[in-house]
Amino acid sequence: MHPLITLTTDFGERDPFVAAMKGVISGISPQSNIIDLTHDIAPQDIHEAAYFLRDSLPCFPEGSVHIVVVDPGVGTDRNPIAVDLDGRIVVCPDNGLIGWVSWKLPIRKIIILDTDRCRVSPICHTFHGRDVFAPAAARIASGSGMEQLGDTIETIEKLPWPEPKQLSSGGIEGEVMHIDRFGNCITNIPGEWVARAPQATVTIGDTLSAAVHRTYADVPMGAPVAYVGSGGLIEVAINRGNAAAQHGIARGAAASMMHDIE
Amino acid sequence: MHPLITLTTDFGERDPFVAAMKGVISGISPQSNIIDLTHDIAPQDIHEAAYFLRDSLPCFPEGSVHIVVVDPGVGTDRNPIAVDLDGRIVVCPDNGLIGWVSWKLPIRKIIILDTDRCRVSPICHTFHGRDVFAPAAARIASGSGMEQLGDTIETIEKLPWPEPKQLSSGGIEGEVMHIDRFGNCITNIPGEWVARAPQATVTIGDTLSAAVHRTYADVPMGAPVAYVGSGGLIEVAINRGNAAAQHGIARGAAASMMHDIE
Amino acid sequence: MHPLITLTTDFGERDPFVAAMKGVISGISPQSNIIDLTHDIAPQDIHEAAYFLRDSLPCFPEGSVHIVVVDPGVGTDRNPIAVDLDGRIVVCPDNGLIGWVSWKLPIRKIIILDTDRCRVSPICHTFHGRDVFAPAAARIASGSGMEQLGDTIETIEKLPWPEPKQLSSGGIEGEVMHIDRFGNCITNIPGEWVARAPQATVTIGDTLSAAVHRTYADVPMGAPVAYVGSGGLIEVAINRGNAAAQHGIARGAAASMMHDIE
Repeated sequence: MHPLITLTTDFGERDPFVAAMKGVISGISPQSNIIDLTHDIAPQDIHEAAYFLRDSLPCFPEGSVHIVVVDPGVGTDRNPIAVDLDGRIVVCPDNGLIGWVSWKLPIRKIIILDTDRCRVSPICHTFHGRDVFAPAAARIASGSGMEQLGDTIETIEKLPWPEPKQLSSGGIEGEVMHIDRFGNCITNIPGEWVARAPQATVTIGDTLSAAVHRTYADVPMGAPVAYVGSGGLIEVAINRGNAAAQHGIARGAAASMMHDIE
Repeated sequence: MHPLITLTTDFGERDPFVAAMKGVISGISPQSNIIDLTHDIAPQDIHEAAYFLRDSLPCFPEGSVHIVVVDPGVGTDRNPIAVDLDGRIVVCPDNGLIGWVSWKLPIRKIIILDTDRCRVSPICHTFHGRDVFAPAAARIASGSGMEQLGDTIETIEKLPWPEPKQLSSGGIEGEVMHIDRFGNCITNIPGEWVARAPQATVTIGDTLSAAVHRTYADVPMGAPVAYVGSGGLIEVAINRGNAAAQHGIARGAAASMMHDIE
Repeated sequence: MHPLITLTTDFGERDPFVAAMKGVISGISPQSNIIDLTHDIAPQDIHEAAYFLRDSLPCFPEGSVHIVVVDPGVGTDRNPIAVDLDGRIVVCPDNGLIGWVSWKLPIRKIIILDTDRCRVSPICHTFHGRDVFAPAAARIASGSGMEQLGDTIETIEKLPWPEPKQLSSGGIEGEVMHIDRFGNCITNIPGEWVARAPQATVTIGDTLSAAVHRTYADVPMGAPVAYVGSGGLIEVAINRGNAAAQHGIARGAAASMMHDIE
């Protein structure tokens, strides 16, 4: 058996942080497969980490172990935790970053990590990734029960998901949650709204407006298009263009969906 | 046995796309080794992907499985395919991106992927990487024959390789195919031409001109040098400098090789 | 048993260099786990590579094999070597890049790699990563003793560590060795100096000055703080800010630590 340990951080790959974590894991659990998810989360951006986990963690099988370190509060008294999310174990600081994934994956158990039971060496107050989270994940992947690493608690911090507002007009008003590499604008409006309003227009910011279709190619090249994206949310793109750059859209921009007037 | 599955995409690593694909693979084929080749192909740049595969795929052993997703046409009717390239299996959209590698690795078989036989969940029209290519590759790596995933076809799209022109003067005229991280300019002129013209000069763009040598260190620091590169093509570099930046060279720039006049 | 092979380069991931190396390793040692440490070392920057290895290699277990290719002298007569660093095997050019890690990990043995015994194909004079270092590491990971790949030598190049100067005033004067992704400035002043001077101030460049604390959170947000970092050296940061960007600090800037006057 080759337990799977993934890494999600805001460390980048130019500094030796991620490499040090991989070394610690290899020492404790040499049979593990170590998989990078990303190290490109914007520095200390818990919102971006929460979005990343929302869309990726549910794809992983039960039994996988995930280290997530985006941790502006390292060295404060925020707790290091291990969370069982429907069979996937996440090891991370208790700062809200699994708030959005727990919507899809129910929390079965939470442990406050006892750093003395996790560590392999004295703990540096500025690098819990190497000294707490990596060894904790490696021990869990090697068969230690979560319970052996600390005490159970009942609740954790969760970044709140900004629910879109239903308008009396029948439309819905939300915001842009994420801009992806292709400039596609992902909103917080659930894809199910398309079923209620198949003839609808989505507007983002001041100038970007698009009718709902199935996919990019349903509109001409260079034209805007709204669709239900791979994360189940309404997105707006420009077919083979970059919607965010062309329209100056940033995360947090207003997004609304209106029934078309017939 | 640990089947090898590699990933080559234009997704970057800041979005959750690659992570989601790795999750799907892990669920279907937990014993696989998942290896990143690159996620930094320029968005939707099939030329760059084709160049990347030309130089890397032939290094992999038979039996390896390779997911390549650079797919401006996702959601159109371009086919998802699996191709046996002399024993290496590539899973990708049929958009030409294996045109340059099939020069070195003969095509033994092509399958149009039947998305219903590949998928683990409903297929999103904008993310075939997660919903078609990842599960198809994982099934092949787990022992499914390609044939079980779809019907055989005879031909696929292939990006044409721009052959350099032989000049009546005896020289050869080509173009810059790729600029690497060090600013080295890789042309489409085959290295074999050096055997015919060991006393030759290679000119790129208007201002970069270099005699052919064995390697960088055969010229002084800061001097330009032409040589047969690791992909078997003529390249021009500046020893410990950045030829492309210093001379304003971009992909597609004219490149020619002339016999020296004695 | 799954031998661990890591990769540290300045190749980036957009070019096919790293992918080609992974292919060669997979062909020779298919059972290996291949782990990226970084490919983002600044091009040809041996100082940055040496710093990276200093902080990461000691975390890996004995028996691990590490390919390090930052090699401005590829094609010159610098030797390709394999070095046993307290049980970890590093395969790299002999250009000084393991000068700083050998402080923590004593050198047990050095071999000059005989390229004819390593290679799988003719050796390209500009890409020893693929044609010499990757096959050498894969052979060692597969059980070849280092001795089978070349002759023993006694000494290698080592980038000298710039020791800080002790001042007659009792203070210490050093320099900034590295700026990390968060803008934290890591100096060459050993953390042990804090024991001698717990009431001390660290000054970097002209405008950045901070008292020594345990961690970031011991000062208000936006305030500068000095502390013993995860690599055992004195660092200066701004709590939730970017010290280097805010104060225009670059690698090599002067750094000094003075006792506070009581």
